[in-house]
Amino acid sequence: MSDYDATYQLLCEKAKEASMLATIQELLEWDERTKMPPAGSAYRADQAAYLAGLIHQKQTAPVIGDWLEQLGESPLASDPHSDTGTVIRQLRRDYDKKTKLPQSLVEELTRTAVAGQQVWADARRDNDFTSFQPLLEKTVDLKRQEAAALGFDTTPYDPLLDDYEPGESTANVTRVLRDLRDALIPLVQAIAGSSQRPDVSIISRKYPIAAQKQFGAQVVAAIGFDLRAGRIDETDHPFMVGLGPGDVRLTTRYDEHDFCDGLFSTLHEAGHGIYDQGLPREYFGLPTGEDVSMAIHESQSRMWENQVGRSLSFWEHFYPQAQSAFADPLGDVDLRAFYGAINDVRPSLIRVDADEVTYNLHILIRFELEQALLEDRLQVADLPAAWNEKYQAFLGIEPTNDADGVLQDVHWSAGLFGYFPTYALGNLYSAQFFAQAARDLGDLDAQFCQGEFSLLREWLRKHIHAQGRRYTPAELAERVTGSPLSHQPLMDHLGQKYGELYAL
Amino acid sequence: MSDYDATYQLLCEKAKEASMLATIQELLEWDERTKMPPAGSAYRADQAAYLAGLIHQKQTAPVIGDWLEQLGESPLASDPHSDTGTVIRQLRRDYDKKTKLPQSLVEELTRTAVAGQQVWADARRDNDFTSFQPLLEKTVDLKRQEAAALGFDTTPYDPLLDDYEPGESTANVTRVLRDLRDALIPLVQAIAGSSQRPDVSIISRKYPIAAQKQFGAQVVAAIGFDLRAGRIDETDHPFMVGLGPGDVRLTTRYDEHDFCDGLFSTLHEAGHGIYDQGLPREYFGLPTGEDVSMAIHESQSRMWENQVGRSLSFWEHFYPQAQSAFADPLGDVDLRAFYGAINDVRPSLIRVDADEVTYNLHILIRFELEQALLEDRLQVADLPAAWNEKYQAFLGIEPTNDADGVLQDVHWSAGLFGYFPTYALGNLYSAQFFAQAARDLGDLDAQFCQGEFSLLREWLRKHIHAQGRRYTPAELAERVTGSPLSHQPLMDHLGQKYGELYAL
Repeated sequence: MSDYDATYQLLCEKAKEASMLATIQELLEWDERTKMPPAGSAYRADQAAYLAGLIHQKQTAPVIGDWLEQLGESPLASDPHSDTGTVIRQLRRDYDKKTKLPQSLVEELTRTAVAGQQVWADARRDNDFTSFQPLLEKTVDLKRQEAAALGFDTTPYDPLLDDYEPGESTANVTRVLRDLRDALIPLVQAIAGSSQRPDVSIISRKYPIAAQKQFGAQVVAAIGFDLRAGRIDETDHPFMVGLGPGDVRLTTRYDEHDFCDGLFSTLHEAGHGIYDQGLPREYFGLPTGEDVSMAIHESQSRMWENQVGRSLSFWEHFYPQAQSAFADPLGDVDLRAFYGAINDVRPSLIRVDADEVTYNLHILIRFELEQALLEDRLQVADLPAAWNEKYQAFLGIEPTNDADGVLQDVHWSAGLFGYFPTYALGNLYSAQFFAQAARDLGDLDAQFCQGEFSLLREWLRKHIHAQGRRYTPAELAERVTGSPLSHQPLMDHLGQKYGELYAL
Repeated sequence: MSDYDATYQLLCEKAKEASMLATIQELLEWDERTKMPPAGSAYRADQAAYLAGLIHQKQTAPVIGDWLEQLGESPLASDPHSDTGTVIRQLRRDYDKKTKLPQSLVEELTRTAVAGQQVWADARRDNDFTSFQPLLEKTVDLKRQEAAALGFDTTPYDPLLDDYEPGESTANVTRVLRDLRDALIPLVQAIAGSSQRPDVSIISRKYPIAAQKQFGAQVVAAIGFDLRAGRIDETDHPFMVGLGPGDVRLTTRYDEHDFCDGLFSTLHEAGHGIYDQGLPREYFGLPTGEDVSMAIHESQSRMWENQVGRSLSFWEHFYPQAQSAFADPLGDVDLRAFYGAINDVRPSLIRVDADEVTYNLHILIRFELEQALLEDRLQVADLPAAWNEKYQAFLGIEPTNDADGVLQDVHWSAGLFGYFPTYALGNLYSAQFFAQAARDLGDLDAQFCQGEFSLLREWLRKHIHAQGRRYTPAELAERVTGSPLSHQPLMDHLGQKYGELYAL
């Protein structure tokens, strides 16, 4: 073995060790959010903080910097997309970002985010923005300091966005999302003006939770989520977490009087889970075995939830099973009426309840506002008014209180700035990948009608999942689809589907 | 703060850090045995091994030896049962035991135990002792090496027993258990000769599992297991684990055609859980907040399972609830018939299925055999014959195959020598404590009839749980009951209860 090879082995072992501690921490968090008894929370917080410190210590050990220095000049790094090149380049990126932040700032950010959860929850409960304002001002200030420590050319939003979308720029995202906004608003208005209205009361009939659980598990197994290497549990705010190769966990929630919330949450998380199960196991714990970015992850969840799970062809296959699982509420409902109801579009105030069409406008509002906050073009005190104004402009409605407005999301209180756009980018990537899959695989609808989902799944596995973190999100999209990120495929999908549904 | 105080603080922090890692490892194990998908097992084993190494490293850091050296001579250690004295003395004991074993032996023991699980499971499945024999020979040899490294005067069994029962001696256990055996065998024979026979078919009627779960949770909550600080899950081999102050987890299993297995497993584990929930939270992670020994732990589980849970007075309170939860199988069964059925005594081959009377004979057989193996008075090759001979002598029955005989328990394959007697000692302590509680608290049966369990529970909390690891098991029993460990209270209990049930 050459010296380079030996150093590379040491580097990989160190990365896998940090990754192992991270999966352990994720088990603690999964347990906290799904199983832990209430009285366990104080000690669990101590355990999590202890592990976070241990992980940070492993990830920022100076010896890693030395090894990366040596390897950066070696033949192992010469092809940046080879196995070794990917590992060296991405660990370099991670190490640099982590070591650029002073320990004191990291601790202050963590403390503020932890305190923020309670302050935000109380403020939301009391519909009292002013009690949240000082904490948000502090958070914005700390995020600006973080951006300054990481360094940027044009806007402090860039290095924060880069945490979630490596290599992506605020300018590019702004351009793409502006195109999306300009195309979406007329579509939303056209739908609002349509005389076609689905009967949405179907969705709030009584769907027994035991049957919802069983049907959800049946559906995700059918699309290819491996339940021998995963499981599904209940929680308040659904999420997916990979705890190791062979252990990928979905969480969801059920409402006896909402067919959509449980099933589409489950499908959404299963989309994330299928990505995780498709990552190359042999590279687990290394960048070659990791996901690309938040938006690419979201593209997978949104594809299975929306492009697949809300399509007519998907339900041509599954609707008979649904009618047999839910004979009472669905026995007298025909497929077209059901399809219309699960695709109801209407402007609403709450992001997480929004439909496939209006959802992106909720994101655009947040993206524009958080950018303005960080660039000091908007003061925190003026945020509620700015929020309401944008809802009026984009969606034609306005919240009557801040609890249903600017206080509805946890993100800002947790210091997550630069995260929101990944939801919209995920939708764009999703449509762009799906359009390419349709070009490569022929008539996907005909496949779905037959309950055939494996061709799409294997296509995703080969072109996206198996690549690990070899490329940036933008590079990956261009490699897979031949085109840069664009709003067009999503608009084509929405225009066609909803044009037909609402007779536009 | 004096230098001693400062050193003591450092020592406590180090102990709490190791304990925090241990609780994290226990969460991994709980998850593995209750939730983890099958494909997750390989990585989980890696995580567990990694954490085990980390914990061992924290526990054996030479600086701990230095601190203990300093503190051993300090005023903080002068009263061995004070808070500080207990911590220093018990950490000294743990440190000495852990550092006496050479790392190579620890690793070999671990490797052999891990390999042993599979070899044993295969041998049991195939009813083939000879395929297990070489591994067991190796294990016995390694345990002798372990005993030698730990040091002993009379028998290598002493230091192994001491792992589970600190300060206990083989000679004393042998004496007490021989008294027990000599009193038990005639009782078992008398019961076998009785013409009274309960109708045990009641127990194997159909008990829907959902109702079993609900009833079990209701019963453990009523006796005082706090479900806000704990939970109950399903597993193959029930266990209890404390994951932190405020997080104590019971596990159990259900068989639709066995009322007793699920309920008494749940009660047994709840007894362990009530002990854990009664340990002083303010000392969590220190010896003053830890349990005394395996046998004292078992005394708590067996008391709630047997002395309380199989008593007539307990069911005078709960039987109406049981009849309403299980109207089909129990509607036509009167309390006395039910009470007889759950207290059926008959010699059997399998330890874990044994009743309250014969159970201890199963333990005695194992205790005598494992002692003989370690003292080289019995060769592994001769073990099956010796096993069968003892079953004939003690219980009057003999296994027709080794799978239901010498291969039935996992313990020896996992290197657990010295562990079996703690089950019998637990039964003895249980009866001895219970008799004392009855002297202190008056008519316990009258209390149970009224659903009043808090007096007993608080008595246990005060006299046993709250003491942490301040005393050895023997010291604690003598302090609480005024007498050394004896077989008499258990025999008094069994003689009276079964004399009445079987009209002896």
